[in-house]
Amino acid sequence: MSDYGKTFESWRGEASEAWSDYTRHAFVEGLRDGSLPRHSFLHYLKQDYVFLFHFSRAWALAAVKAGTPDEMRIAASTVDALVNHEMPLHIKTCAAVGIDESTLFSTKEEQENLAYTRYVLEAGYSGDFLDLMAALAPCVMGYGEIGARLAIEATSEEYREWIDTYASDEYQQMCRDVGALIDNAVASRLGALENSPRAKTLADRFEVATRLEVDFWGMGLRG
Amino acid sequence: MSDYGKTFESWRGEASEAWSDYTRHAFVEGLRDGSLPRHSFLHYLKQDYVFLFHFSRAWALAAVKAGTPDEMRIAASTVDALVNHEMPLHIKTCAAVGIDESTLFSTKEEQENLAYTRYVLEAGYSGDFLDLMAALAPCVMGYGEIGARLAIEATSEEYREWIDTYASDEYQQMCRDVGALIDNAVASRLGALENSPRAKTLADRFEVATRLEVDFWGMGLRG
Amino acid sequence: MSDYGKTFESWRGEASEAWSDYTRHAFVEGLRDGSLPRHSFLHYLKQDYVFLFHFSRAWALAAVKAGTPDEMRIAASTVDALVNHEMPLHIKTCAAVGIDESTLFSTKEEQENLAYTRYVLEAGYSGDFLDLMAALAPCVMGYGEIGARLAIEATSEEYREWIDTYASDEYQQMCRDVGALIDNAVASRLGALENSPRAKTLADRFEVATRLEVDFWGMGLRG
Amino acid sequence: MSDYGKTFESWRGEASEAWSDYTRHAFVEGLRDGSLPRHSFLHYLKQDYVFLFHFSRAWALAAVKAGTPDEMRIAASTVDALVNHEMPLHIKTCAAVGIDESTLFSTKEEQENLAYTRYVLEAGYSGDFLDLMAALAPCVMGYGEIGARLAIEATSEEYREWIDTYASDEYQQMCRDVGALIDNAVASRLGALENSPRAKTLADRFEVATRLEVDFWGMGLRG
Repeated sequence: MSDYGKTFESWRGEASEAWSDYTRHAFVEGLRDGSLPRHSFLHYLKQDYVFLFHFSRAWALAAVKAGTPDEMRIAASTVDALVNHEMPLHIKTCAAVGIDESTLFSTKEEQENLAYTRYVLEAGYSGDFLDLMAALAPCVMGYGEIGARLAIEATSEEYREWIDTYASDEYQQMCRDVGALIDNAVASRLGALENSPRAKTLADRFEVATRLEVDFWGMGLRG
Repeated sequence: MSDYGKTFESWRGEASEAWSDYTRHAFVEGLRDGSLPRHSFLHYLKQDYVFLFHFSRAWALAAVKAGTPDEMRIAASTVDALVNHEMPLHIKTCAAVGIDESTLFSTKEEQENLAYTRYVLEAGYSGDFLDLMAALAPCVMGYGEIGARLAIEATSEEYREWIDTYASDEYQQMCRDVGALIDNAVASRLGALENSPRAKTLADRFEVATRLEVDFWGMGLRG
Repeated sequence: MSDYGKTFESWRGEASEAWSDYTRHAFVEGLRDGSLPRHSFLHYLKQDYVFLFHFSRAWALAAVKAGTPDEMRIAASTVDALVNHEMPLHIKTCAAVGIDESTLFSTKEEQENLAYTRYVLEAGYSGDFLDLMAALAPCVMGYGEIGARLAIEATSEEYREWIDTYASDEYQQMCRDVGALIDNAVASRLGALENSPRAKTLADRFEVATRLEVDFWGMGLRG
Repeated sequence: MSDYGKTFESWRGEASEAWSDYTRHAFVEGLRDGSLPRHSFLHYLKQDYVFLFHFSRAWALAAVKAGTPDEMRIAASTVDALVNHEMPLHIKTCAAVGIDESTLFSTKEEQENLAYTRYVLEAGYSGDFLDLMAALAPCVMGYGEIGARLAIEATSEEYREWIDTYASDEYQQMCRDVGALIDNAVASRLGALENSPRAKTLADRFEVATRLEVDFWGMGLRG
């Protein structure tokens, strides 16, 4: 099993059906066996660039809401990883097919894209650090889980670069760091998760965000 | 013509296609001629109750971001109108068919519903008072426009109570008050809207929110 | 004893020294025996008008962060009470000595005033509903406690109108309502306060806000 | 003259008296000629560590509110510079006199410290990107201006390390980058600053934050 922390394990367990719909989505299987049409992938990639811009904003919000220097450092590092490593990969891949960054940034947001990022940001603004973490976790950890699995199971080289990004040691380490961050944040704010009245609210947030990931893949396929 | 202010006129003009899709939607025509299936209306009403809860939160955010006592008073009055007048109507209508408030409040949010309210709230949190107004205006004024038109054009009594709510003097006055609030807020922050670099961003926000209204009606029909 | 809820009792107990400095401040004693110079009172009243504007924004933020219809209703009612009842009293009292509302609103904020309201608002924005409640409680309940005591102990009629405002049944009821709101919010989010890892953080917030009240009285005396 | 951008020049010009009180404060002169008591410097340094934690949160909020990838990158880099370069210097200097980071982090915030950081954060939350920039600028650019001047005028080696930090090429470059960020943000949101109705509000924010810097030095001297 992955080692992304016990809070994540609990949330994934409670959202198991949605989690499976997300991490075993037809889009993902298309990345695995190379059958995903290139135009769908490019449509996804352009939307994902806009997604990452807002997702970076959400991680910056985690830094704003940090309660300790450690929380601050991990959130700030994650923003840096997104802005200076993950987004440039999108820029590079798109540049290779003739799409420059300003075109990317002005991509018209699909409704599934908008729904997801605004849900995450609003959870962070209206709730606390944990509400934000529960909404951020499905994307971070789900891509880690998909990357790790496809690195083993892929039967095509077509989407190898994408797979390698999320299967990489750096990305997997980030998932473990974020998992530990969440476990510590739960401990210092709620104590034992299972005894907290907030357990259900947080698990619900995680599940809603997971469902929004499913819609995002669907949007990709439609492109 | 309605008299909801010149900023609203400008925004509506720039989003005319989306505005027409919204205010002339099949759902609206079903309210007009009574052909809307009752179960669709109830589905809509339950979702709209959850919508109004978040929409009230968004108007409360306008009070938080108020720059003058007048902005504060209008925003606070609007929250009061939503919480103590518009929501109770939903509660009453639903109670009549055996749905109580706690059931209403725990209605599972459809994705179109979630997308819309989180978009509005996030616009308010991340932007300024005007970003929030541009995202709030389509709902407030669109319902005013629809109510006023259907009060004249309705060919059925089936949805008369709904129509009367939004055609009422009170609701129409609220639309004019909000329109004046927006005009004043633009004048004191931007000067002439047409000369401001933010004109396009704000018009875009209005159009995106209008499109989310179109999706909301579509969700209603699906129910 | 007052009946402002058990969470408030706990917070007040942990901040007892600060609470006494606040509720037994020389400014308060001057209201009681009428020895407070009129110019100090007017200085305080003008600052307090600006304070109430920002304090109303903070209560509106509580409505934004409400998790249930009940939390929404109480927060919205409190905004209404502040904007439409407490602030008009300040406007009326100041008008009687020739200060109009626009002069009031443009009063230059003293640093002690700014420090307090921004602390409360930031607690609400960065934290959750409970962080905001812990920062709001000292003002609401402290004025209730002072008003109730001075209604009995005052030896002068000089500041009777001020005393009556906070000793009134309406204000005392608001304190009890807010106290119940806080008790319920703690129960639904933390369970038993004394077992929660957040107990200390929340008590600290309450104490910091109480200290900022002490500074506010000191600012009043200086005027 | 420094080259921190034309918006900054304009704001500094309008707040010239407060700016002089800040950048020519007795605390600063004590750093210049080495007469500042060591215990005052250490008191300042401990408070400044807590300040930087919240100031980093405020820069992270700028990333949340970024409207373009460029605004995002500069804000994210500034958070990184604060968290991974400026704060470690404080930790190192304090460690040398036996104060570890957890002691530093639990330093009881002085009221002048709290007032300043909450003012900046609240400006960012309630306003827009420009409100936040106007509140952040006095600290960033003031330290740059002080560092550059003292590097030339210092008559003692006592506080050389502090001076060198802010006189350094890296820090001066950051001031220029932030100045350009602000100029661009004004252009894309307001057009010409001098024609905007917001010019006065923004200049006021800058002046209030500058006055809070003056109070911060005063707090340092008191220590």
